[in-house]
Amino acid sequence: MIYLDNSATTKPYKQVLDSFIKVSEDYYGNPSSLHKIGGQAEKLLQQARSQVSRLLEVKETEILFTSGGTESNNLAIKGIAMAHRERGRHIVTTSIEHASVHNAMVQLESLGYEVTYVKPDSNGFVSAESIQQELRDETILVSVMHVNNEVGTIQPIEEIGMVLKKHPKAFLHVDFVQGIGKVPLNLYNSGVHLATLSGHKFHGLKGTGALFIKEGVMLSPLFSGGNQEWKQRSGTENVAGMVAMAKALRMTIELREEKLDQMKSAMGKLRDGISQIKEITIHTPGENCAPHILNFSIGGLKAETFVHALEEKDIYVSTTSACSSKKKAASKTLLEMGVPAAQAESAIRISLTYSNTAEEAEIAAKAIAETVKHLSEVIKK
Amino acid sequence: MIYLDNSATTKPYKQVLDSFIKVSEDYYGNPSSLHKIGGQAEKLLQQARSQVSRLLEVKETEILFTSGGTESNNLAIKGIAMAHRERGRHIVTTSIEHASVHNAMVQLESLGYEVTYVKPDSNGFVSAESIQQELRDETILVSVMHVNNEVGTIQPIEEIGMVLKKHPKAFLHVDFVQGIGKVPLNLYNSGVHLATLSGHKFHGLKGTGALFIKEGVMLSPLFSGGNQEWKQRSGTENVAGMVAMAKALRMTIELREEKLDQMKSAMGKLRDGISQIKEITIHTPGENCAPHILNFSIGGLKAETFVHALEEKDIYVSTTSACSSKKKAASKTLLEMGVPAAQAESAIRISLTYSNTAEEAEIAAKAIAETVKHLSEVIKK
Ligand SMILES: Cc1ncc(COP(=O)(O)O)c(C=O)c1O
Ligand SMILES: Cc1ncc(COP(=O)(O)O)c(C=O)c1O
Repeated sequence: MIYLDNSATTKPYKQVLDSFIKVSEDYYGNPSSLHKIGGQAEKLLQQARSQVSRLLEVKETEILFTSGGTESNNLAIKGIAMAHRERGRHIVTTSIEHASVHNAMVQLESLGYEVTYVKPDSNGFVSAESIQQELRDETILVSVMHVNNEVGTIQPIEEIGMVLKKHPKAFLHVDFVQGIGKVPLNLYNSGVHLATLSGHKFHGLKGTGALFIKEGVMLSPLFSGGNQEWKQRSGTENVAGMVAMAKALRMTIELREEKLDQMKSAMGKLRDGISQIKEITIHTPGENCAPHILNFSIGGLKAETFVHALEEKDIYVSTTSACSSKKKAASKTLLEMGVPAAQAESAIRISLTYSNTAEEAEIAAKAIAETVKHLSEVIKK
Repeated sequence: MIYLDNSATTKPYKQVLDSFIKVSEDYYGNPSSLHKIGGQAEKLLQQARSQVSRLLEVKETEILFTSGGTESNNLAIKGIAMAHRERGRHIVTTSIEHASVHNAMVQLESLGYEVTYVKPDSNGFVSAESIQQELRDETILVSVMHVNNEVGTIQPIEEIGMVLKKHPKAFLHVDFVQGIGKVPLNLYNSGVHLATLSGHKFHGLKGTGALFIKEGVMLSPLFSGGNQEWKQRSGTENVAGMVAMAKALRMTIELREEKLDQMKSAMGKLRDGISQIKEITIHTPGENCAPHILNFSIGGLKAETFVHALEEKDIYVSTTSACSSKKKAASKTLLEMGVPAAQAESAIRISLTYSNTAEEAEIAAKAIAETVKHLSEVIKK
């Protein structure tokens, strides 16, 4: 099997599962319980938090544990919007955000907030200037993703952070889900106030995530209750899941050192192979992109048909983002980049992880070429 | 070790962990992915949903998966409040709800909603009449817990449901976290619109939960995004966690058949033993209570000291609810029942599960007697 859909989800590392089991079996206490069964669980949770904070180079008290990227995005966006609504109700974001950012914005619009959606250029990049132009006195939040999940473009977070230095009233939220462990981003230097992580995107477990919240930033919680996580996210903590996520993050960041070149070479082979197929248009630019995502479309072929044809060869790729794949919608990012609808509807995303090899890339590139050829012939008949 | 803090959290069943690992390793796909790795995960998720729905005797489409009891309570309460705010902004609940209900209400008050907190009687029961008296034309939601987590009293959900039949504008939400698997409740017959479940309270995993949402009931989501879970709870689904939760629920309901008598006999031994200790006042009534919870206080002793002293004997009990235990606050339920503050501050909760035996109960009752004697002597010196 060649699994090339790592931006949809990844296979948990063996060691991550081992930790999960160990903690679930031996340290199953409720961290809020006074007795030592609770105390042991609390200690493990604190160690996981400390590990994540060290890996992100932030303070331990700045890491909030959640159930995933969608929760973190919604908590950041709605949490800021609700807590600071008396100061202003204008938000700036981009038109190429993940659905969990986009739809949180749409929900806020229905509650009386005004949201400006900044468009990317034709390569899929949003400039700091275009964000700057939309800032107002009432702007309380700017939310821009780091690595775009559909085409892999890296947005200029650091520059946007610079722009926001002159607008201290607006918080900067970054959807860091696709970037973490693949493309470095220094949260402090970039002036980021909130950053979203999702455990299952870096070989942790589904149902685990985190939100970096810079010291002093106030949020209105989505979950009120027993006041866990500094009252910003109540609920019995998923201790084993968080220990597993911390481990997955450490392993991924370590693997980056070791395997980034391998991944780049695999991506190079894929790009080379695919760019020779005349029916294919590659949408991921050659520069300023994450090393693991390649987006392309195949003239005249339905993306779904292509995904299933490749699956016959035991190769797994995606049509745009996983959450919209079942809707058979065109890739939103591509449409916003100005790619014609027919092409945006036939978009395919390949997404790698550090275990993918150049050999797999060669096999996949060849299989893609064969499949395009075969399907095109079938259609012509 | 004798673990008697099962209302705080339970140890996951071995088979539940096995299922979790199996699914995480072999079916790690994203259920939203089009290819078969995704399809297999989706199928497992659907099977888990179908199993939970059968166990609750409701429809498959009425089960929404969440990250736990706190999320389900917040989603039910805020989701109804937000979605139906044009129809009315009055909510009725009780003064003895879990923090995740209570604090959701407080948050809604800060957003302009009016909340009536109905008090229990001196035994910890809230009557259907006292709820009825507070209903108004603008009441959109009534939220009453099934089994109280601090003293174990069973609230008359069915009667409250009957009352609400005459107020079709108000939805009935039930926090079913402590009752499920211990005290039967037929959701349909009781006129319940929303019911909260938490996986880790019945030997499932932390970070898993569910919300029953009766067909036709509309909620405003807390998590917007990729439109998973019928758009009411977006985010990549924790497939392995939900399979594990479904299994834990099935096993717990099966164990009830087999072990309820054993648990009752253990509880009987505890109650008998403890009631002979003259320093102790038992707060859990002898009737209409869940079989697994016993609350009592020890005159003149600090609950925390007592928990730690018992821990020395490898017996684990709780001061009130887990989430408030670290605040050293008095038990809210006891205060509302009219128990004097000094007693409410020295409250201890014992909570059983089906693996606890009469033998353990005898050992624990003896240890409690000895500890009370010992600590009382220490204090007198
Ligand atoms: C950029 C981005 N943000 C957020 C998410 C949502 O994260 P999760 O799947 O953990 O809810 C995803 C993936 O689905 C993503 O790719
Ligand atoms: C009655 C009740 N409701 C809700 C909860 C919250 O559930 P969870 O721990 O899954 O967030 C608990 C336990 O903490 C509880 O006892």
